[in-house]
Amino acid sequence: MDTRVHEHAETLVDWSARIDPGDDVVVHVGEGSHDLAVAVAGALGERGANLLARHRSDEMQRAYLRGHEGTFESDPAFERDLYEQADSVLSLRGTRNTRATADVSDESRQSYASARQEIREARLSTDWVSTVHPTRALAQQAGMSYEAYQEFVYDAILRDWESLAAEMSRLEERLDEGNEVRIRKAGGTDLTLDIEDRTAVNSAATVAYDSHNLPSGEVFTAPADATGTVAFDVPMTVRGRRVRDVELTLKDGVVVDIAPAAGGDVLESIVETDSGSRRFGELGIGMNRGIDRATDQILFDEKMAGTVHLALGRAYEACLPEGESGVESAVHVDLITDMERTGTSLTIDGEVVQRDGRFRWEDGFEA
Amino acid sequence: MDTRVHEHAETLVDWSARIDPGDDVVVHVGEGSHDLAVAVAGALGERGANLLARHRSDEMQRAYLRGHEGTFESDPAFERDLYEQADSVLSLRGTRNTRATADVSDESRQSYASARQEIREARLSTDWVSTVHPTRALAQQAGMSYEAYQEFVYDAILRDWESLAAEMSRLEERLDEGNEVRIRKAGGTDLTLDIEDRTAVNSAATVAYDSHNLPSGEVFTAPADATGTVAFDVPMTVRGRRVRDVELTLKDGVVVDIAPAAGGDVLESIVETDSGSRRFGELGIGMNRGIDRATDQILFDEKMAGTVHLALGRAYEACLPEGESGVESAVHVDLITDMERTGTSLTIDGEVVQRDGRFRWEDGFEA
Repeated sequence: MDTRVHEHAETLVDWSARIDPGDDVVVHVGEGSHDLAVAVAGALGERGANLLARHRSDEMQRAYLRGHEGTFESDPAFERDLYEQADSVLSLRGTRNTRATADVSDESRQSYASARQEIREARLSTDWVSTVHPTRALAQQAGMSYEAYQEFVYDAILRDWESLAAEMSRLEERLDEGNEVRIRKAGGTDLTLDIEDRTAVNSAATVAYDSHNLPSGEVFTAPADATGTVAFDVPMTVRGRRVRDVELTLKDGVVVDIAPAAGGDVLESIVETDSGSRRFGELGIGMNRGIDRATDQILFDEKMAGTVHLALGRAYEACLPEGESGVESAVHVDLITDMERTGTSLTIDGEVVQRDGRFRWEDGFEA
Repeated sequence: MDTRVHEHAETLVDWSARIDPGDDVVVHVGEGSHDLAVAVAGALGERGANLLARHRSDEMQRAYLRGHEGTFESDPAFERDLYEQADSVLSLRGTRNTRATADVSDESRQSYASARQEIREARLSTDWVSTVHPTRALAQQAGMSYEAYQEFVYDAILRDWESLAAEMSRLEERLDEGNEVRIRKAGGTDLTLDIEDRTAVNSAATVAYDSHNLPSGEVFTAPADATGTVAFDVPMTVRGRRVRDVELTLKDGVVVDIAPAAGGDVLESIVETDSGSRRFGELGIGMNRGIDRATDQILFDEKMAGTVHLALGRAYEACLPEGESGVESAVHVDLITDMERTGTSLTIDGEVVQRDGRFRWEDGFEA
């Protein structure tokens, strides 16, 4: 087996999930994740953990949902109790067809998801970690060869996380202490975000930092207010539609204009969802230098070093002051802007922290 | 998808497991059973059952057991509770390599199995059914092409189970009422089994008949005593060794001689296990006409119409009178004899029930 698969498993089990002897671990095995699952099983055996593997197949899910009449009753005990007893849940995503459930109705999906609210909550209350095993289907979605995609994925995952966490803590401190973030780019982007009293999260791909994705590599917070204009030039797929070069204008925290662009109508519909969907619930700053391109997978794209993302909708609780609710919404849609462009800067309380995609502590930074 | 896979799924869910709306169903998905799993998921959706799929991979199991230091502590709550809450467990076996765990030590296997006693009991207390999806690895073990093996498996599984169950009940009644079974074959086999007060089981591949394998198609009971000689001429693999044409002689229920034969030493070692391993705990009579040859898989071989099997070791509780324990042993090793040979007969209390492999109610039977 590719030695990188074993390194991936070790990183997941030790750095990310911090598995101890005797831990009860549920492993979700995607249809295309078999090799990673074998390596993870070996690592869990070595750590003396207990292992229960679940089969997570998009094709089974499609068959089940299409077979079902479409109304799911909420009777979650059977599955919920498994997660309530589990210490960790490791999700090894790796589909063989990213469109495998394209012909399942939204009603069926939503009914299934609603009936499973308690199961989801039980799972999220464990030390869960979600990761990706490179498959041909994911390579295809990224527009890459399989070989090149494997290299891309392992470059993103097999990092020196300890040293990246230390670097990220520099930005985390500045955001914690700062009151105002300003993002400027050539071409009209000039956005000011109020972050006073908000807490930044150092998302270093480990449950020890309350970070649940491998790869990770971003620092994020929850803005209290936003004013100005921002263009999102990193292309992505939102609700099955390509969105690119969309420009939003905000006033008093609320989106007041969406300039015409490819996929702009998808965003028009998203901001209509509820009162929170017109606000930015998250400001995230990508810091993973292993991710060198967008691959149409948000788990990777938003961590890309030299990018900033802002999410319409729901804020993360960890960023909010005690007792404050922040942006509440049914949606959380990340939009990404490329900072590795001439004339770009990110300042915190007037100090330039990043220019043209380089942080002030990095080689090549020009004040 | 092959329509036979859907028919297999329907047979499993409806005839075998008797799934009702709202049932909590655990599905064990083997590495090579994906297609059957998709069909089963669809059928469970249609029945309105709840589905939780487990991944059962020999390769993961090997990695886990080899990684583990080899001593498993008994702390089964996490997994046991899942089965205690489940109504049914459907095991879709289908390995991609029948020798995938060949390099796992016996100590490790045994320690793992011992620590999981309660989990096994919880699983066996559900309406469990075990079946097989045809894979290339199983075809190879059977010495058959993949196409031919698929036909073989579906011939065994896609039967008119209702009518087979009715036919089997004829034999079941005779065994229930009878006191003595005698098996004679040309070449020296002449074995008399005492079955007074024992209960026969009509194993018709449905939990409604307390029968948990698909395919099934045998009637079995637990002899109280056995005397005589019997040759097992259907070849099989026991503990990794080929066993063929071995001849056992019993006196007062106990094996007193094993005639030299291929693999005879494996049986010599098995009968030394404990006091029960020298006795026949089971007499089974194969009645599945869809199984026309031995394929080195006991789940199929022992159901073959025109064969009789006797198991060294443990008796099934369902066959025993209230309060009687029958043969108790750590082993249960089935050995098969071919009855479709000239000069062969099976009599119950003197009545010839089967001659040369034909039952008395079948065409071609000659009294």
